[in-house]
Amino acid sequence: HKASKPPTGFHDTFLSLSSNYTVSEYLRSLTLHPHLAGTPEGYQTAQYVKTHFESLNLETKVSEYEVLLSYPVKISLTAHFSNLGSRVIGLSEVGFDVVRPYHAYAPSGKAVGAAVFANYGREEDYRALGVNVSGSVVVVRRGEGMSRGGVVRAAEGRGAAAVLTYTEGEYVKGVERGTVMKGLGDPLSPGWGSVVEGGEKLERSDTEVEDRFPKIPSMPISFETAEAILRSLEGPQVPLEWRDALKNSNFRAGPGPTVLNFTNQVEDKNARIHDVFAVIRGSEEPDRYVLLGNHRDAWTFGAVDPNSGTAVLLDVARRYAFLMRLGWRPRRTIILCSWDAEEFGMIGSTEWVENNIMNLGSRAVAYLNVDCAVQGPGLFTSMTPQLDDLVIDITKKVQDPDAPDITIYDEWTGRNKGINIQRLSGVDSDFAPFLQHVGIPSVDMYFGKDFPVYHTAFDSYDWMSTHGDPLFRRHAAVAGLWGLLALRLADDPILPFNYSSYAMQLQEYTSILSNKLEGRISFTPIFKSVKNLLAVAQEVEEEAKELRVDGGASSDVIVLKKRMLNDRLMLAERGFLDADGLQGNRWFKHLVYGPSNKYDSNIDFFPSIANAISQSTQAKKDNQATIRHEIWRVARAIQRAADALKGDLS
Amino acid sequence: HKASKPPTGFHDTFLSLSSNYTVSEYLRSLTLHPHLAGTPEGYQTAQYVKTHFESLNLETKVSEYEVLLSYPVKISLTAHFSNLGSRVIGLSEVGFDVVRPYHAYAPSGKAVGAAVFANYGREEDYRALGVNVSGSVVVVRRGEGMSRGGVVRAAEGRGAAAVLTYTEGEYVKGVERGTVMKGLGDPLSPGWGSVVEGGEKLERSDTEVEDRFPKIPSMPISFETAEAILRSLEGPQVPLEWRDALKNSNFRAGPGPTVLNFTNQVEDKNARIHDVFAVIRGSEEPDRYVLLGNHRDAWTFGAVDPNSGTAVLLDVARRYAFLMRLGWRPRRTIILCSWDAEEFGMIGSTEWVENNIMNLGSRAVAYLNVDCAVQGPGLFTSMTPQLDDLVIDITKKVQDPDAPDITIYDEWTGRNKGINIQRLSGVDSDFAPFLQHVGIPSVDMYFGKDFPVYHTAFDSYDWMSTHGDPLFRRHAAVAGLWGLLALRLADDPILPFNYSSYAMQLQEYTSILSNKLEGRISFTPIFKSVKNLLAVAQEVEEEAKELRVDGGASSDVIVLKKRMLNDRLMLAERGFLDADGLQGNRWFKHLVYGPSNKYDSNIDFFPSIANAISQSTQAKKDNQATIRHEIWRVARAIQRAADALKGDLS
Ligand SMILES: [Ca+2]
Ligand SMILES: [Ca+2]
Ligand SMILES: [Zn+2]
Ligand SMILES: [Zn+2]
Ligand SMILES: [Zn+2]
Ligand SMILES: [Zn+2]
Repeated sequence: HKASKPPTGFHDTFLSLSSNYTVSEYLRSLTLHPHLAGTPEGYQTAQYVKTHFESLNLETKVSEYEVLLSYPVKISLTAHFSNLGSRVIGLSEVGFDVVRPYHAYAPSGKAVGAAVFANYGREEDYRALGVNVSGSVVVVRRGEGMSRGGVVRAAEGRGAAAVLTYTEGEYVKGVERGTVMKGLGDPLSPGWGSVVEGGEKLERSDTEVEDRFPKIPSMPISFETAEAILRSLEGPQVPLEWRDALKNSNFRAGPGPTVLNFTNQVEDKNARIHDVFAVIRGSEEPDRYVLLGNHRDAWTFGAVDPNSGTAVLLDVARRYAFLMRLGWRPRRTIILCSWDAEEFGMIGSTEWVENNIMNLGSRAVAYLNVDCAVQGPGLFTSMTPQLDDLVIDITKKVQDPDAPDITIYDEWTGRNKGINIQRLSGVDSDFAPFLQHVGIPSVDMYFGKDFPVYHTAFDSYDWMSTHGDPLFRRHAAVAGLWGLLALRLADDPILPFNYSSYAMQLQEYTSILSNKLEGRISFTPIFKSVKNLLAVAQEVEEEAKELRVDGGASSDVIVLKKRMLNDRLMLAERGFLDADGLQGNRWFKHLVYGPSNKYDSNIDFFPSIANAISQSTQAKKDNQATIRHEIWRVARAIQRAADALKGDLS
Repeated sequence: HKASKPPTGFHDTFLSLSSNYTVSEYLRSLTLHPHLAGTPEGYQTAQYVKTHFESLNLETKVSEYEVLLSYPVKISLTAHFSNLGSRVIGLSEVGFDVVRPYHAYAPSGKAVGAAVFANYGREEDYRALGVNVSGSVVVVRRGEGMSRGGVVRAAEGRGAAAVLTYTEGEYVKGVERGTVMKGLGDPLSPGWGSVVEGGEKLERSDTEVEDRFPKIPSMPISFETAEAILRSLEGPQVPLEWRDALKNSNFRAGPGPTVLNFTNQVEDKNARIHDVFAVIRGSEEPDRYVLLGNHRDAWTFGAVDPNSGTAVLLDVARRYAFLMRLGWRPRRTIILCSWDAEEFGMIGSTEWVENNIMNLGSRAVAYLNVDCAVQGPGLFTSMTPQLDDLVIDITKKVQDPDAPDITIYDEWTGRNKGINIQRLSGVDSDFAPFLQHVGIPSVDMYFGKDFPVYHTAFDSYDWMSTHGDPLFRRHAAVAGLWGLLALRLADDPILPFNYSSYAMQLQEYTSILSNKLEGRISFTPIFKSVKNLLAVAQEVEEEAKELRVDGGASSDVIVLKKRMLNDRLMLAERGFLDADGLQGNRWFKHLVYGPSNKYDSNIDFFPSIANAISQSTQAKKDNQATIRHEIWRVARAIQRAADALKGDLS
């Protein structure tokens, strides 16, 4: 009689199992040592997670891959100041036994050149700077959505000798590590799954590999070091918007007179990485997957990034295991995923996705990502739009961690004066391969934002327990949201997807673009497909409503009817994929959400159209043809989603 | 109580409904007039088929597309013989009111040049010929697997001014029409579905369109005309193997002294085409499709090509409708498809496939093609290997049409001294888009082979009733095979697919290639994946056996278990697809079956490897790298099939 408890009863029990104590213990254990991917300490965290899953009696699995990672060997920087003479600059975060600050995959090399400040390193910044940076060492502050690799490439394109990046903020001695590789996954196995041995591997010297790395050396420096350099610059005055960065230098950006002498020795080498999984097989539809994923590897101690998420994952596992002891089994399979080597370019998740593309493509219901679970107070969340309603619903079921009498929904909507949901065009955590390569509906969520110790030695348990989440209630809140979301997706007889939201979001995007181009190009093809999608979505909601009412009844026909409707709901997102992918970046197959390869498009949807528009600064006729073709591709992708949702032939 | 008859009972009834009378009537009606695609007479056949389906009370649908077709305007040929003077050559088949012989999509133009004979027009033929054909009008006999377009392109690549093709055989006044377009489907909508209005269309002048057509004019001539020209040639003696073609000319191939003056005026224009469908919705799994397809358009009367198949399709419809009146409904949906514009390059089927790619990709169980159903006596059949056992089984259930006391199986295996099954790498009928673009398990079948009136005015009801199938028993036999095959695929609770056959076929292919390359390149990656596929296939057969035994029982769990196993069986074939497709021909996604783009590879499987090998005539080191990479791609494709069949994550 245990097992006869209805799923919703178990869902309430799940919420009642909240515990800030367990989650804080997990975080402490995970962050005892720095645990960079590919190191023995990194492997120890894999063992820790594995042991935790096993001790809960969960089916546990480890997938090992050999991939190309990148580590610092020797790095030095000397500044020759015109007035102060030469000075060797300290580059490490003193007092921490962590990997020295570096850019993974930056080439080794030497550069001697005048220092020059290029603000955020965008195209518009170089235009505003108005000086030749060729041969210079460019100093750039991180921000405005520019990726590390993008900053270095932009400087490289202008002939710079090297790039130093820094991050503004209160931790002036902290240095933000990071990767400068372009694209996702192991660079030696682009597009296919790496294995431990016996698989195809490109040579390190293959052009396809080389193209993923910048050609000029770069590294991160502290805010303090950056300010010392910037302070010493002369040259013309810079635009107003730059002056907050140059307040100690009379607003001069160089080049020079300070000359920087930078030596970078970074070694790329094959390393073993480990994804760890706990699988809770579905009792009725074991071939449908609800995936919860978080990466485990960290640049240093990783208390925020990513192990606040790992601690939550382990706590969700604990709660699920408890439900199982009460007799619960999910209808669909739930998989808890602990990724390795995300920091190097989503490598652990991407290799797994590439190795499992067939079954993920035809069987995965949703991917739920949590990376830096707790950065501070307040929910922030992004998702594909068919999940909007479900996530909103879930936020109403979990108590706010900072204000006991209200729900997360209340705090979240109160702070934002309404619903504030972001989308997933970024390539900044492990949802990217799932959504942008395979078309799996995805969610990303976290508490707090823009935490000051990002990728520095200061991202430790100490920071978390002092600043990020002293009572670990925010951790517990994320566990509630994340775990309940997966329970609904795994247990609901009809998948809780709303494609009307998707259609309305797409309609808004299309209007934005149409207005931006001031009617010079017709967006009618997209408007038409969106209208079709909306009509189908409304039909499907009616159909779902009827089948939900029939929920109690059970016959062969009803069982299959539900399955067939769920298949359509699951597969509709795949319609947005295009086998040809994004031009110049064909691995990215999703035509609604994915990276725009131009620095200044400012459009975070329809990436293929955004790229075509940003290439057409003067709206040349040729380019209008490209934009038109990309509009057609998107229109057809949306129509495919509508067709899959409708499930009929034309 | 009608509906309680078990499916196999209905299958026996289906066989008992055989009728050579009805099928002969259908064929007579279909072939009363020539019915080229895009013409009013072509549209009349669509109406005829539609009316037939409707009169049987079947759910009927017509899909209309606007596509670029190609028709002759004015064509002339004058021969200047050194001894006989000039002669205007008659090019039409006298006494028939049919479209004049031409090559669809051949460019308009004039060519004056010495005649030269190039045997089958292969690379090796030009090497053996050993003369410069630049500026000449090349005469080529059809055969040896060279496509019409391939013949013209090879001549074009050698600077020829024009190409005349002819076909040897008893109908010396017949002329073989055909298309010279490369690739499948409407040239103005490559890769996406054409619609009647409002869709994207490339310009006729777009390079991507131009690339699909030869640059030099060409046309077909009769055997009689060809012999008159060949007889007049001088020049050096040709190789022994050519001499059967040149027996009246002392084995001389030119160039000259005969000079040919050829004017070709062919018009490409937009036309409407019509696919016609009858849909029999599945009672339990309406979202799974078993497709029976045949094209309807013909170059002339089309009694063999394709309407022997159409007549059979209509008779299968008649029989199914009868079963429905007895209470039968298939478990899965059966769709009878009547394609238009196949002769121009599989255009009707390709546009439909492109328009329905999402739902075909995730829902189609199998595509069963019949084109020239009856060309003479004896079964010939090709299929993807998981269908071998089923087809063999079916041939044991249908009586041989020419020997009343034995089954088709007996005649077929007797004649071939065993099982003789071909595969589907050809791009010569409508199975190509289903299998080679979407990865749907496919069958092609027909009686007789190499009929002499192919694409000529002599392909008429008269020829069929005199030579091809005077008693129409072969037609009835094809109806039995085809219809029963679909019934099994639609009704069997567990799909009758055997992937061990596939694995063994793949193993054989790999051994052939490995021997051909004499161990210079390792095929271990493919052998390994094949071994994995075989192991999974054997597991799955055990699983299927158990579920077949449980067939009587019915519970939610069993219903879903069957569905889940069938999904794996259905989707395994999709694993052979690769998003990047064949190099230089990316629309073709299947890495086991598809066209090799080189004239002389002689390997009709693993097309991407075959292409890489044929490019490496001297086995240069670069090329070995390409072959190796293609071996890896195939190995991974086979592993994907194994993964999909296994249905588990790694
Ligand atoms: Ca890879
Ligand atoms: Ca098309
Ligand atoms: Zn992270
Ligand atoms: Zn990070
Ligand atoms: Zn045909
Ligand atoms: Zn034909």
